[in-house]
Amino acid sequence: MPKHQPPRARKRPKQSRSVMAVQAIQQACLNILNSEGADKLTTERIADVAGVNIASVYQYFPNKEAILSDVYEELLTEMADRAAQRFLEIQALAEESLEATLTAIIDLECEQLLALQSLDPNFFLKYQHSFDIHQRVNELTQSQSNPSWEEWLDQLLQRSCPPSEQAELRGLLLRQSLQGNLHITLRDRPELLSSASFRKELLKLLLGYVQAP
Amino acid sequence: MPKHQPPRARKRPKQSRSVMAVQAIQQACLNILNSEGADKLTTERIADVAGVNIASVYQYFPNKEAILSDVYEELLTEMADRAAQRFLEIQALAEESLEATLTAIIDLECEQLLALQSLDPNFFLKYQHSFDIHQRVNELTQSQSNPSWEEWLDQLLQRSCPPSEQAELRGLLLRQSLQGNLHITLRDRPELLSSASFRKELLKLLLGYVQAP
Repeated sequence: MPKHQPPRARKRPKQSRSVMAVQAIQQACLNILNSEGADKLTTERIADVAGVNIASVYQYFPNKEAILSDVYEELLTEMADRAAQRFLEIQALAEESLEATLTAIIDLECEQLLALQSLDPNFFLKYQHSFDIHQRVNELTQSQSNPSWEEWLDQLLQRSCPPSEQAELRGLLLRQSLQGNLHITLRDRPELLSSASFRKELLKLLLGYVQAP
Repeated sequence: MPKHQPPRARKRPKQSRSVMAVQAIQQACLNILNSEGADKLTTERIADVAGVNIASVYQYFPNKEAILSDVYEELLTEMADRAAQRFLEIQALAEESLEATLTAIIDLECEQLLALQSLDPNFFLKYQHSFDIHQRVNELTQSQSNPSWEEWLDQLLQRSCPPSEQAELRGLLLRQSLQGNLHITLRDRPELLSSASFRKELLKLLLGYVQAP
């Protein structure tokens, strides 16, 4: 997809002193975001909190957004790990009830997006296409020879829903409706992602569609 | 929304000779896209077909994408005019059947996106957030003191659907599901936008949701 990619770090250092400096810069960025907020984030402030020279910051990162990219990568890796764990619980639910399964998926996706956005809302909105949690979870699960998110959802629908001549399209529209609604809501009405009414209506939309004869 | 905007033309000329040169450049760009395809589009080829000096092209436009922006603006204006006309037919349908109305809306939206994308697929995918047909149609209809697309759709749902405690969310999710599905499909599976099965499944999703008690 020909979209703008966020800036990335320059070549990774191998020397232990340099590796430590890069880690200090990333940690300082995260600390500032959590305690002072994205408005206060500058490379000067990052250098200050990390206890490194501003020249060192620019030695490793072309600009502030490249540091943010690293922090987001780290957060995504942690999230994908947690999501893969939650996924085991969701798989257990899937044996019992499609409604409970879709509810858990909606809750998980809303929480992930809210966490990603809260760190630096403008940065995340601008580059969210580069930080795709499903892709990371798929990399994890497929490395363990498990089905991808898409395959798993299609199998779930085949087991739990009325047969459809358009089973492939049904799975596609279910995933796209979930993803599309969450991303447009994140952009235009982010406060709705934590609203129980919003999540309930989204469930009604998805469940009604896949359960229709 | 903090997304990358496409480059735009430099200051518009007022002298008639310059205005004609700009129009010739825009027309040449459109002709090349229609007859030779986006792969063949370069500023040199545009200057050649327009019969102007390459230096003149750069006098008015910083680069090829700025010329494409103008061509897309023109296409969007024409499309919004046509859509406002089609909308009168859709309003007449709305008195009769919600299913027919949603079918007509899905068809119109798919055709608009296919036309916008076919001109220069990569340019449109990259900047589609800047070329929003609903916004243009709203500007047109509101200048005539008619309701916006969003207001009109909400009124339609109120007349044609079972009462809902979440009427506002229902309208929002309907619009977002339509927009989200069309944009993700355009990005990932554009060939589906012209498929009758795809449009039928999308109708089933939307109609099932708004008609559910």
